[in-house]
Amino acid sequence: MASTLLTGIGELTTNDDELGRMRDAAVVVDGDLVAWVGEASAAPAADELVDVGGRAVLPGWVDSHTHLVFAGDRTAEFEARMAGEAYAAGGIGVTVAATRAATDAELAANLDRLVDEALRGGTTALETKTGYGLTVADELRSARIAAGRADSVSFLGAHLVPSEASDDEAYVDLVVGDMLAAVAPHVDAVDVFCELGAFDERQSRRVLEAARAAGLALRVHGNQLGPGPGVRLAVELGALSVDHVAFLDEEEVLLLAESWHGGRGTVATVLPACDLSTRMPLAPARRLLDAGAVVAIATNCNPGTSYTTSMAFCVATAVLQMGLTIEEAVRAATLGGAVALDRDAPRVGPDGRALAPLGRIRPGARADLQVLDAPSITHLAYRPGVPLVHALWRAGERVV
Amino acid sequence: MASTLLTGIGELTTNDDELGRMRDAAVVVDGDLVAWVGEASAAPAADELVDVGGRAVLPGWVDSHTHLVFAGDRTAEFEARMAGEAYAAGGIGVTVAATRAATDAELAANLDRLVDEALRGGTTALETKTGYGLTVADELRSARIAAGRADSVSFLGAHLVPSEASDDEAYVDLVVGDMLAAVAPHVDAVDVFCELGAFDERQSRRVLEAARAAGLALRVHGNQLGPGPGVRLAVELGALSVDHVAFLDEEEVLLLAESWHGGRGTVATVLPACDLSTRMPLAPARRLLDAGAVVAIATNCNPGTSYTTSMAFCVATAVLQMGLTIEEAVRAATLGGAVALDRDAPRVGPDGRALAPLGRIRPGARADLQVLDAPSITHLAYRPGVPLVHALWRAGERVV
Ligand SMILES: [Zn+2]
Ligand SMILES: [Zn+2]
Repeated sequence: MASTLLTGIGELTTNDDELGRMRDAAVVVDGDLVAWVGEASAAPAADELVDVGGRAVLPGWVDSHTHLVFAGDRTAEFEARMAGEAYAAGGIGVTVAATRAATDAELAANLDRLVDEALRGGTTALETKTGYGLTVADELRSARIAAGRADSVSFLGAHLVPSEASDDEAYVDLVVGDMLAAVAPHVDAVDVFCELGAFDERQSRRVLEAARAAGLALRVHGNQLGPGPGVRLAVELGALSVDHVAFLDEEEVLLLAESWHGGRGTVATVLPACDLSTRMPLAPARRLLDAGAVVAIATNCNPGTSYTTSMAFCVATAVLQMGLTIEEAVRAATLGGAVALDRDAPRVGPDGRALAPLGRIRPGARADLQVLDAPSITHLAYRPGVPLVHALWRAGERVV
Repeated sequence: MASTLLTGIGELTTNDDELGRMRDAAVVVDGDLVAWVGEASAAPAADELVDVGGRAVLPGWVDSHTHLVFAGDRTAEFEARMAGEAYAAGGIGVTVAATRAATDAELAANLDRLVDEALRGGTTALETKTGYGLTVADELRSARIAAGRADSVSFLGAHLVPSEASDDEAYVDLVVGDMLAAVAPHVDAVDVFCELGAFDERQSRRVLEAARAAGLALRVHGNQLGPGPGVRLAVELGALSVDHVAFLDEEEVLLLAESWHGGRGTVATVLPACDLSTRMPLAPARRLLDAGAVVAIATNCNPGTSYTTSMAFCVATAVLQMGLTIEEAVRAATLGGAVALDRDAPRVGPDGRALAPLGRIRPGARADLQVLDAPSITHLAYRPGVPLVHALWRAGERVV
C-alpha cells in the first residue's frame, strides 16, 4: 500500500493531548496506519497527495454500542409509540423470532447494509452484539456473522429470557454454560441487559462473573428506564462500559468518575438517539463530564428503540440538547468509543495479530480519518442533519 | 421532455384527500408535471420506466422559510452559545456587514451552494428572504439574486434597524418607501421581524400595510423569543404565515385555527432546527394541530440561529420531540409549506407564466418527487440522521 499525504487541513482534531487541535496541518497515512502528523509546511513527501482545501479532519466515529445482527424491522411498533398508542405485538421478542427464521446470508446481508451505511456516515469502527438468537446455535451464528464485519463483538445472550425458556434461572444457566462456551472464541466481551423486566442484579452478576472467568471483557446495559443496579455492578466488576445511564443519582455519577482514579475505569456510554426514539429523558452527559467521568456517545442502532447508524446525529443532539461542547461531543464519539472498546492503545487480537489503536490521529494509530465538508467540527452541531462527510479513510483505505 | 413512469412504489404519500396514502402505486411524470397517479397494475405506458423497488415516494420538501442570501458564517457565535458563554460580537449585524462587503457573484455562489445542498436533501421548492442588505441597493440586489434560485422571495428589509440608521422611524420610512418600491418587482411577499428588540407592533403594522398596498403577500416573524403581538397582527392582516410561534397562549392558538374558517387563513410555521440551535423550547405544533391550525415545518436556514438545510432533520425532530405523527410532520413539511407560499393551487406568476401547484402528488401538480431508501415515510423519524433520499425529481427533471 502506498503512502498518502493529506494536506491543506484547516483544522485537525487529533484527540492527542500533546498534538491537540491543530490549524494548517497535514497527516501522512502509510499502509493502514497514521505515520506522521504535523504542520503542513513541514510535511514529508508521500506517494500520493490529497489537498483537502482547508476542511476539518477528525478521527472516524467509533460506535461502541450497536445491535446489527437481526432480521425484520419494527416500523409499526415505532409508529404506535410515536402516536402514543399501546402496541402489544412489539418488543425484542419480535426481532428474536425474525432473526431465528432468517438464513445466515440474510443476516450477513443486513449487517453489511448497516455497516456500509454507517461507514458512509463516517463510522470507521464499531462494536456490535449478539442477542436476537438466544439459543446456543443462534447466538453462535450471530457471533460468527458479527465477527465478519465488526471491530468488536459482545455476547448478549442475556438480552431477554426467551419465551420458550422454562424459567429465568434455567435460561441464565444456559447463558453462563453452553452458550458462553460456544460463543467465547468469537467475541471480545459479554454484555447483560440489567433492567427491571430483563435480568436482575443477581442474575446479571452471574453472567458477568462467568464472563470474567472466561477471560472476556464486561459491558452492562444499565439505568435505562429507571434507577437500577447496573452502574454499581459495572463499576464493582470493572466493566469496560455501562451503557444508557439515563437515570443516575449523584453517587452513581461520582462512582463512574472515581472508577478512573488510579487505573482503567468504566466508561459511561450515552445513547442520545435511543433516548429520543423512546421519548425518554436524555442521559446526563453534562453531569458525568463535570464530575470527571469518561463518556462515550454511541448509536445503539437496533430495530426497536434506536434504528439509526448516524453518529453525526448523536453528536449534534449531544451539543444542542445535552449541553456538551462540540469538542466534548466529538471526543466522546471517537476516543470515548475507543476507550469503551479498550482500543485506545495498541492491543493484540485473539489470533495474535497486532490491533492498532482507534480514536486518535497520531503516529501509530489506525488511519481512520474523516474529512468534513466544513472548516471546523463545530459545523457538526451548527448544521444538524446535513451530511458532512466529504472524504473518509478506514484503516488507510479511502472509502468515501 | 419525455414521459416517465415511476412504478413499484411501495407506499405513495400524495397529500391528496381523495388519493390518500396508496400502496403498490405508480406515477407518470410528463414534462414538468404529474400526469397520472394510480395503482401500478393500471398504469399507462410512458417513454421511460423507473421501478423504485417497493420504496416510499412522497412530494419533495417545500421549505417555506430560509435566509440564504448572505455572506460569512457565525461559527464562533454558535460555539459560544453552545458553551453557555456571552458573545458580544454576534448577531444579525455581523451578517449584514459581510453581505454588504460581498460581490454579487459571491452571494449567488453561496445561495447556489445551499440550494443545491437542500436539493440533495430532498427540498424541491423553497422560499428565501432578503434582509442582510438593509440599504435600497443591497436589498434590491439580494432580491434579484434570490429570484434567480428560489421559488418564492420575501422582502425582509424590516429584519433589523441597521447601525447607520439615524433612528428606528427613519429606517421604517425607508423600508416602506424607497426600499419597498425598489424590490417590489422581484418579490412575492414582505416579511417583518416583529419581536422585542426588532420591530414593535406599530412599526410592523406600517410595514405590512405598505406591503398590502403594493399588492404583495404578507409574512411575520413572530412570538419567537417570548409572547408578542406577531400572531395577532398576522391573523388580523391576513398574512400567509406567521413563523417561529414558539410562545403562544391558548387564544393565539385558537386565533390561528379560526383564521381558516370560511377561507384562506394564516399558516403557523414552526422552525424546529432553530428552536434547538438557540436552545429555546420547541414550538407547540401539537397544540396547533389539535386546535385545527394549518402548520408548516421549515428550516429557517440562516448563518446565525439555524444553519441547516435539512428538512428531514426538522421532520424527525417534529415526530420525536414535538409529538407529531409522521404523517402530520411530512404533510407540514410538504403541503404545509406549499400553503404557506400560497402555491397549493395553480397560480399565475408575475410574468404571466402558469405556476403549477406544489406539495401534492396528483395530476397537474409540479412533478417534485422524493424516493426514499425505505419502505415507508415512517423511516424519516425511525432512522434520524440517516440520509434517505434515493432518487429525486424536481419539476420533472431527475436531480438525484
Ligand atoms: Zn443496546
Ligand atoms: Zn427567519
